Amino acid sequence: MTPTVTSDQHLTDVLNSFDESADARLTELLRSLVTHLHSFVTETGLTREEWIAGIEFLTAAGHACNDHRQEFILLSDTLGVSMLVEMVNQHASDFATEPTVFGPFYVPGAPMRTMGESIAVAGSTDQEIVISGVVRTSYREPLGNALLEVWQVMPNGLYDVQDPSMESMSHRATFRTGDDGRYEFRTTIPVDYQIPTDGPVGKMLEATGRTSWRPAHIHFMVSHSGFKTLITHVFDSASPYLENDAVFGVRDSLVVDFTSGGASFNFALDREP
Amino acid sequence: MTPTVTSDQHLTDVLNSFDESADARLTELLRSLVTHLHSFVTETGLTREEWIAGIEFLTAAGHACNDHRQEFILLSDTLGVSMLVEMVNQHASDFATEPTVFGPFYVPGAPMRTMGESIAVAGSTDQEIVISGVVRTSYREPLGNALLEVWQVMPNGLYDVQDPSMESMSHRATFRTGDDGRYEFRTTIPVDYQIPTDGPVGKMLEATGRTSWRPAHIHFMVSHSGFKTLITHVFDSASPYLENDAVFGVRDSLVVDFTSGGASFNFALDREP
Repeated sequence: MTPTVTSDQHLTDVLNSFDESADARLTELLRSLVTHLHSFVTETGLTREEWIAGIEFLTAAGHACNDHRQEFILLSDTLGVSMLVEMVNQHASDFATEPTVFGPFYVPGAPMRTMGESIAVAGSTDQEIVISGVVRTSYREPLGNALLEVWQVMPNGLYDVQDPSMESMSHRATFRTGDDGRYEFRTTIPVDYQIPTDGPVGKMLEATGRTSWRPAHIHFMVSHSGFKTLITHVFDSASPYLENDAVFGVRDSLVVDFTSGGASFNFALDREP
Repeated sequence: MTPTVTSDQHLTDVLNSFDESADARLTELLRSLVTHLHSFVTETGLTREEWIAGIEFLTAAGHACNDHRQEFILLSDTLGVSMLVEMVNQHASDFATEPTVFGPFYVPGAPMRTMGESIAVAGSTDQEIVISGVVRTSYREPLGNALLEVWQVMPNGLYDVQDPSMESMSHRATFRTGDDGRYEFRTTIPVDYQIPTDGPVGKMLEATGRTSWRPAHIHFMVSHSGFKTLITHVFDSASPYLENDAVFGVRDSLVVDFTSGGASFNFALDREP
């Protein structure tokens, strides 16, 4: 039989199936997604075996997800989608700190610490450095009472949530800036680390010759009422992985020197529109 | 800061990360996928909340998958991707039977039955009909010794694998055509049925006002060495869901009359190139 439905007509049929939807935004998203997925299949001439491999990849990724592991965020990270979502959503002005990727290891509710305290494990003998700076508005006014949520990989290359031997909320804390906008805390020097490679995303990276390393960094979420929340990292300029971060999060403006007993970084927040 | 990386440069960075890949085809697929995913994000202005909802949808779909349930195939089916994959891969000539979607309910190794036997549950009192026809080459020569794998929904609207009370391989069988290419078997009349709606795909269909029904049909996979394997359905012309099949599988050439105690359908297979 001559095909009674062409691939163009087939796409139209699928797009039209959402005509009765009461959720306009969901429909917009699904129509865009469907259009791109169909283009992907036709452009690549996706074989049935490749389609099945894709289904099996997604299934394995789903089965790898649990309370402490989010393989789909890793997938989004390693395909540059997570970073792009931040680029699309965090429209920093020319005078605000550049945002970067959120990552899968944030945990809400990190404990409040006072100025100068350590976020490292209590009683540890790991060498510590001092991180300090000022939170300002994008007009360079100091911003007191801003919240800094900080999270960081441990010296063993794992986040607390990846290491069952660790207490929760290790290498995590929340600080409040003083009236002068200053913050200061102690922590261990951040290390380069690998994203988890024992799941389907790790297999994808290995099969395509990609690195699974992330350059050493500290995560920050900086917020204050009336200002846009900033999600970013501060990277160590000494890392050999700055040029090929597995999740494409490095921005030149976020790279600082960690060698002299600490690092200094000033944040600038845009006002809410 | 003025963004040091534009979204175009970001896409280039991600595409270039596959430069060292030794798997050319996988790299081609991933580069196409990445390009389309990035376009999806920028075109829709995907918000972080929508991105998280997408991650949660995929995670829930993964957790819904088990030995008897494949939510990602359902997702592919309901977005028209599965049907498109068949359209791209099964290039039927003008003289061969039109293919349609494979579906998630095929089970390999259905038991051999002899001409005229029933595929329905042994000892059932459900009314049966006769399905018969001829398998031919696309040059209209009868094709003896062809294998017909047949699978069908049960009168309760479920496939055997969805119904823990059923023996496996209910409403499934494999037949071999005679020298004259004929096949014949008995079965219950196929019923319209809903695809599973208790998972994330069902929620997506409901949220967008789409139907979850499939028009009554019998699945066939017809194969013979030297010929392209045909995967298709035969649909009941009396179904009210022919115009809005949840998985976009209906083709006019596959719709036949089931009302007179049975149905007749002839298959035509293309030779392998």
